[in-house]
Amino acid sequence: MNSVEPGREIFVKNLDPEGGRDVETPCKSPLLSEAWRPYQRPRAITKEWLLKLRSCFGAVCGMEWYGYAALGVLTAFLSFLMDLSVAKLLNAHQWLYMKLEGNSLLQFFCWTLYPACLCAVGSTFSHDICPFSTGSGIPEVRTMLVGFEMPHYLSVTHLFTKYVGLICTLAAGSTVFLGKVGPFVHLSTMVGAYLSNLCTLVQVDKKENALREMLVVAAGVGVASCFGAPVSGVLFSVEVMSSHFALKQYVPCFFSAACGALTFRLFAVWSGDGETLQALFKTDFPAALPFYPLEILLFAFLGLVCGAVSCCYLFCHRRMLKFTKTNSVLAKLLTTEKGLYAGTVAFLLACVTFPHFFGRYMASKFTMKQLLTSLMDSSQWGSQTHNASVSEPLSKWSSPESPFYFSLTFFLLMKMWLLVVACSLPVPAGYFMPVFLYGAALGRLVGEGAAYVFSWTSINPGGYALAGAAAYSGAVTHTLSPALLAVEVTGQFSHAVPALVAALLANAVARSRRRPSFYDALSIGKRLPHLPSLKKVCPQLPSTPVGQVLGVKSVQLQKAAGPAEVEDVVHSSTETQIPVVDSHESQILLGFVLRSELLLFLHHSKTETLEKHLDEVCCIHPISALISPHNSIQEAYSILSLIGAQTLFVTDRGRLVGLITWPEMKGILENLTKEI
Amino acid sequence: MNSVEPGREIFVKNLDPEGGRDVETPCKSPLLSEAWRPYQRPRAITKEWLLKLRSCFGAVCGMEWYGYAALGVLTAFLSFLMDLSVAKLLNAHQWLYMKLEGNSLLQFFCWTLYPACLCAVGSTFSHDICPFSTGSGIPEVRTMLVGFEMPHYLSVTHLFTKYVGLICTLAAGSTVFLGKVGPFVHLSTMVGAYLSNLCTLVQVDKKENALREMLVVAAGVGVASCFGAPVSGVLFSVEVMSSHFALKQYVPCFFSAACGALTFRLFAVWSGDGETLQALFKTDFPAALPFYPLEILLFAFLGLVCGAVSCCYLFCHRRMLKFTKTNSVLAKLLTTEKGLYAGTVAFLLACVTFPHFFGRYMASKFTMKQLLTSLMDSSQWGSQTHNASVSEPLSKWSSPESPFYFSLTFFLLMKMWLLVVACSLPVPAGYFMPVFLYGAALGRLVGEGAAYVFSWTSINPGGYALAGAAAYSGAVTHTLSPALLAVEVTGQFSHAVPALVAALLANAVARSRRRPSFYDALSIGKRLPHLPSLKKVCPQLPSTPVGQVLGVKSVQLQKAAGPAEVEDVVHSSTETQIPVVDSHESQILLGFVLRSELLLFLHHSKTETLEKHLDEVCCIHPISALISPHNSIQEAYSILSLIGAQTLFVTDRGRLVGLITWPEMKGILENLTKEI
Repeated sequence: MNSVEPGREIFVKNLDPEGGRDVETPCKSPLLSEAWRPYQRPRAITKEWLLKLRSCFGAVCGMEWYGYAALGVLTAFLSFLMDLSVAKLLNAHQWLYMKLEGNSLLQFFCWTLYPACLCAVGSTFSHDICPFSTGSGIPEVRTMLVGFEMPHYLSVTHLFTKYVGLICTLAAGSTVFLGKVGPFVHLSTMVGAYLSNLCTLVQVDKKENALREMLVVAAGVGVASCFGAPVSGVLFSVEVMSSHFALKQYVPCFFSAACGALTFRLFAVWSGDGETLQALFKTDFPAALPFYPLEILLFAFLGLVCGAVSCCYLFCHRRMLKFTKTNSVLAKLLTTEKGLYAGTVAFLLACVTFPHFFGRYMASKFTMKQLLTSLMDSSQWGSQTHNASVSEPLSKWSSPESPFYFSLTFFLLMKMWLLVVACSLPVPAGYFMPVFLYGAALGRLVGEGAAYVFSWTSINPGGYALAGAAAYSGAVTHTLSPALLAVEVTGQFSHAVPALVAALLANAVARSRRRPSFYDALSIGKRLPHLPSLKKVCPQLPSTPVGQVLGVKSVQLQKAAGPAEVEDVVHSSTETQIPVVDSHESQILLGFVLRSELLLFLHHSKTETLEKHLDEVCCIHPISALISPHNSIQEAYSILSLIGAQTLFVTDRGRLVGLITWPEMKGILENLTKEI
Repeated sequence: MNSVEPGREIFVKNLDPEGGRDVETPCKSPLLSEAWRPYQRPRAITKEWLLKLRSCFGAVCGMEWYGYAALGVLTAFLSFLMDLSVAKLLNAHQWLYMKLEGNSLLQFFCWTLYPACLCAVGSTFSHDICPFSTGSGIPEVRTMLVGFEMPHYLSVTHLFTKYVGLICTLAAGSTVFLGKVGPFVHLSTMVGAYLSNLCTLVQVDKKENALREMLVVAAGVGVASCFGAPVSGVLFSVEVMSSHFALKQYVPCFFSAACGALTFRLFAVWSGDGETLQALFKTDFPAALPFYPLEILLFAFLGLVCGAVSCCYLFCHRRMLKFTKTNSVLAKLLTTEKGLYAGTVAFLLACVTFPHFFGRYMASKFTMKQLLTSLMDSSQWGSQTHNASVSEPLSKWSSPESPFYFSLTFFLLMKMWLLVVACSLPVPAGYFMPVFLYGAALGRLVGEGAAYVFSWTSINPGGYALAGAAAYSGAVTHTLSPALLAVEVTGQFSHAVPALVAALLANAVARSRRRPSFYDALSIGKRLPHLPSLKKVCPQLPSTPVGQVLGVKSVQLQKAAGPAEVEDVVHSSTETQIPVVDSHESQILLGFVLRSELLLFLHHSKTETLEKHLDEVCCIHPISALISPHNSIQEAYSILSLIGAQTLFVTDRGRLVGLITWPEMKGILENLTKEI
C-alpha cells in the first residue's frame, strides 16, 4: 500500500493534469520502457525502427484512425469468412439431402438432425466457454455504450466463442431462421476493444475515452460489414444504440464503416462472386417507371399492416420471454441443459419445416439469401401462373396443390410462431434478418394482391417486398434506417421514398402506447440497467428525484484529516475520487482527492516525522459534476453519459449528500425495477 | 405591477408544476376563452365544431404531428413555387437574349443588365424590409437551435422578404452562380416557427420546448424539400446544425422530410415534369458494371484533390470576408448602399461570363440545373471528339477553338474567384449548390483524364462528377451527407460507396489543422455566439472556467425577505427565476422563486395587513441545474443546451456565485472573442 500500483500509472496521469509534479511517475509508453531481457541489440534496433514507423504513421493522422480502419477491415474479413464457412456447411447439408433422394426417412433424419446437432453443439460450446455469449448482444452493447462497464462482454475468448457459435446457428439455415446482425455488432465491439488496447499501447499522447469512442464506432461497423452497407449500418447503430449522438463520432463511424463495407465487397469480388462492387441482394427492378405516384397510398397501407403485425409478433415474443422465465421446467432446462434444449427445439423446428411435411408449403428448401432474393423478384407471379413459363423463384413458392398465395400466407402464419420459438434458443443469433425477411414476405403478399386487384397496370410486387422488409424490421426494432438498408442491400434507389413512408407508418403503429421494441424487451428481460428501455415499463422511473434513491452515504474526508483518517478511508473504499468536506460537522463539499494521491500521502507520512494535514499535502481538485438531490434520475443519467464524468457529487445547499457513479446508478436502477 | 401580465399566463403554468394551486389562474386554451363579441351564436357553433374536429384529430396522434406534416408540405410547396417562378424568369431572359441574336451590343446589355437589376432589386428589397434576410441563414439557424433566442429571424415578414429576395437571386441564373439550400433551411424554420405557434394555440396539453423541436425538424425539412431528398436532407441538417443530436427528434425529422420530399416530387409529376416520382437530376449510368473495383483508388485520389481545392476556396472566402469588413469603402457601401453594390458586382460577374467574351469557354449559357446534368453525363467526351456525332452536353462544353479540357479547366479557374466574389453579394442566397456544381466539374475533369489515361477500359466520367460533387461540397461544409445527397438527387445508388470514400478523404484534408468550415467562417464573421465555430479560432475558449468570466452578480433574495426587498428585486431584474439564499451573509443557495410568484406576493402583501416573509408565501423551487465555477464554458454550454434549462446556477461550496442564462452566455462569448 506504500506505493502506486504499477497498473495505475497511466491511469493516474490521464485523470490528473496537475498531480505528480514532485513525484517521479514513469509515464513513458510501454514500448519505450527498458527491461533486462535477452537480445538487447536486435531488440533495440527493432524498437528504433518501430518508433520511426510510428512517427511516420503519426505524421499523417492520429493513431486511432489506423485503429478505425483496421476495425473496419477486420470485421469485414470476419464477416466474409463467416459467410464462406456457412455457405460450405449449408452446401454440405443440401448435397447430403439431395443424395438421399428417394428415401424419405433418411432424408427426414438428414433434414432434422443436422440443424439439431449444430444448434446443440453451438449452444453447448458457447455455454461451456463463455456463458454470456448467447443471444444477440445488442442489448449488452448499448448498455456498455451508455457508460456501464461490462468487462466480460469484451474479452477475446468471448469473441471466439460467439464467432464459432454463430457459424453453427447460421449453418442450421432457414430451418432455424436466425440471422447474424446482432452478434456481428457485438463481435465488432469486441474487435474494437482489442484494437483500442493496441492503439493505447502504441499511441504517444493518450486520449481520454478512447475505448468508448472505439466502441461507438465498432457498433456502426458491425452492421455495415454484415451487408456491405456503410450508410444504413451507421444509422442503424445510431438509432438502436444511443439516445443522444455526439456528432464528433460521426466521421470516425463513417470512415470505419466505409472501410468495412469496401473490404467486404472487395472480398466478394476477389472470391469471384461478381465482377465489381455491387449490392448484396442485387435486384433488377424496371428503371423507367419504378412505381406510379398513387401507389404511395398502397405503400402507406403496407406500412400500417406491417406495424400491426409487428405489434402481434412483439407481444408473442414478450410472452415467450416471460414464459421461459416463469415456467420452472423451461427455466431449469435453460440454465443447466442448454445444449439439450437447443437441440430439441431445433429438431422440432426442422420437423415442421421438413420439405415432405409443412415445408413444401413454405419454400423451406431455400436458404435465407435465396428466400430474400426470390421475394424481391420484380416479375408478377400472379400473371405467370397463366403462362407456360414459370420463373425460378415462383417454382419454389408454388406447386400444383398450393398456389403461391397459399404458400405465402402459410409461410407468414407458421414463421410467426416458429420465429418466436427460435428466439428462445440459447445460441448466439441475430434477430434482425428473420424479421427483415418476414417483412419481405408480407410485402410480397400485399404486392401480389395489389397486382391482382389493379391488374390493368404493371405493378412491381418486388418493390412491395422491399418496402415491407423495411417497414416490418423497422417496426420491430423501432428504427427507420432499415428503409435505407433495404435500398442499400438491393441497390434499388428508386424505392427509397416508398420504403421510408412505409417504415414511418409502421413505426408510428409500433411505437404507439409506449410499447417496448424488440431490443427493449430483451434489455428488460435481462435486467440490464438501460434507462431508455426501463422507461417503457416504468414511466415514472426517470422523473424520480435522485435524493429519494440515494444509497448509504459514501466515505468522505475532512480538510484537516490526518494519516489515520486517510488510512481508514483508503481501506474502506475503492472509489478513485474521494470527496473532501470542510469538516464533518458542516459537510460543505470542497472538492475531491484522488485515491492515488492518498496512497502517496500515506507513504510520505510514514517516511516523514512531522504530521501533516490532508490539504497541506494533497491537491484538492475542484468538482466539475455537481447535481442536487432534486435532479431526476434521468438528468443524472444524462449528465453521467454526456459529460463523461465518472463520479457525480450530490449536494444540497452546499452540503455533500452522496455521490453517484456508474455502479451506483446500476444499483439504483436495479432496486427501482425489482418488481418487473 | 399588481397582477400577472396577461401574456404570461400559459408560460407560468408551463414552468411551474406546483404553484398556482391557491391562486385561480385562467389557463384555458385561447380557443375556449369567452369574450363579448358579435355573432355569439354562429361563433359558438363554429367553436363547437372546431373543438370536435380537434378531438377527432387528437385521437389519432398528437397535434404536433399534423404540424410536422404541414411543415413538410408547405415547405415543399414553397420550394416548388420558387422553382416554377425562377424557371419562368430564366426562360424570359433566355428568350430575350435569343431574340437579340445578331446584335452583340444589345445582347451584352441584355446579358448583363438583367441579373444586375435582379440582384439590385433583390438586395434593396431585402435590405429595406428586413435587413437580416441576406445571406444563407444557416449560421443563424444553428445558433438558434443551440438555444439562443433571435426572434427577428423567425418573423413572417422575414419569410416573405427572404422568399422574394431569393427568387431574384436565383433568377439571375448561372451568371451569379448561387443556390437555394441555405435560405431554404432558414425559410423552413420560419414556417416551422409559425406552425408551432399555431399548434400551441390548438393543443390541449402544451409541450415544453415545442418551438425548439419544431425548429430542429424544420432544419431537416429545408434541404429535403429543396431536392426531394428526404434522407440526406435530414442528415445534412443534423451534421451542420448540432454537435449532439437527440434521437427522439429523429422520427419527427424523417416524417416531416418524407412529407416534404413526397410533396415536392408529386408536384413535379402533376406539373408534367415526369410520369412518376424520380430523382431531381436523373442520370443514366450503365447498371451492369458501374465501375471497376480498382477505380476506388482513383475516387480516393479525387477526394484528396477536392479536399485540397476546398482548402484553397475556403481560404479565399475567409480573406474576402475579412476584406469586406476591413476595407472602409466596401464596408460603407455594404452597410448603406447594398443595392448599388449588388448591382455593380452582378454586372461585373455578368460581363465576365458574357457568351461572346470568356463565357464561351465556360458553358455560361447553361442554367445551374443544365450544368449539373451535363457534367453528370455518362458518356466519355474524350472519345466523342474523334467521332462525327457529338452529344448535346459536349457541344456546349467544347467548340473548335476550345476543347472541353480547356473549357473545364478555365471554368474551374474562373469560377473559383467569381464564386468568392459572388459570396459577398448582400442578397439572400445559398452557397451549397455552387460548390456542389464546382465539385462536379472538378470530378468530371479528373474522370475525363482517367478515361484518357486508361483508354482501354470503359470508365464512366459521370461517376467521377458525382463523387467530385459529393467530395467537394462535403469538404467545404465539413459534412459527409453530400455523398448521400449526390446519390439521392441523381438516383445512382451504385456510386454510393465511391462517393462516400471521396467525401471522407476530402473531409480529412479539409478538417486538418482545425480549419473552420464555410459556415463556421460565416458564424465567426457575423460574431454569432456559436461555440463549435468559435472553438476553431479560439481553441482555449471552451476550457476557460466559468468562474473566470462570470459577470456582475445578479440579484438575489434572502429567505426572510419582506415586501420591500421583493419590490426592489422585481424592479431591478427581468429574470424569470430569481435565486433565494439562506441569508445575505451566508449566501447558501436554497432554490429559486418565479418572478410571477413574486408579483403575486406583492399583490397579497398590499391587500393583507399582516406582513409576511417570502418563504411563508412563495414556493421556493428546488434547483435542478447547478454547476461550480470550475466547470468549463463548454460544459456550461452543453448543460444549457442538452438539459434544456433556462438558468444555470453557479455555486461554490454551496454559496451562490452567479447565474448563467442564454443572454449571459452570449455576452460571455462575445467578450471572450472580441479580438477576433
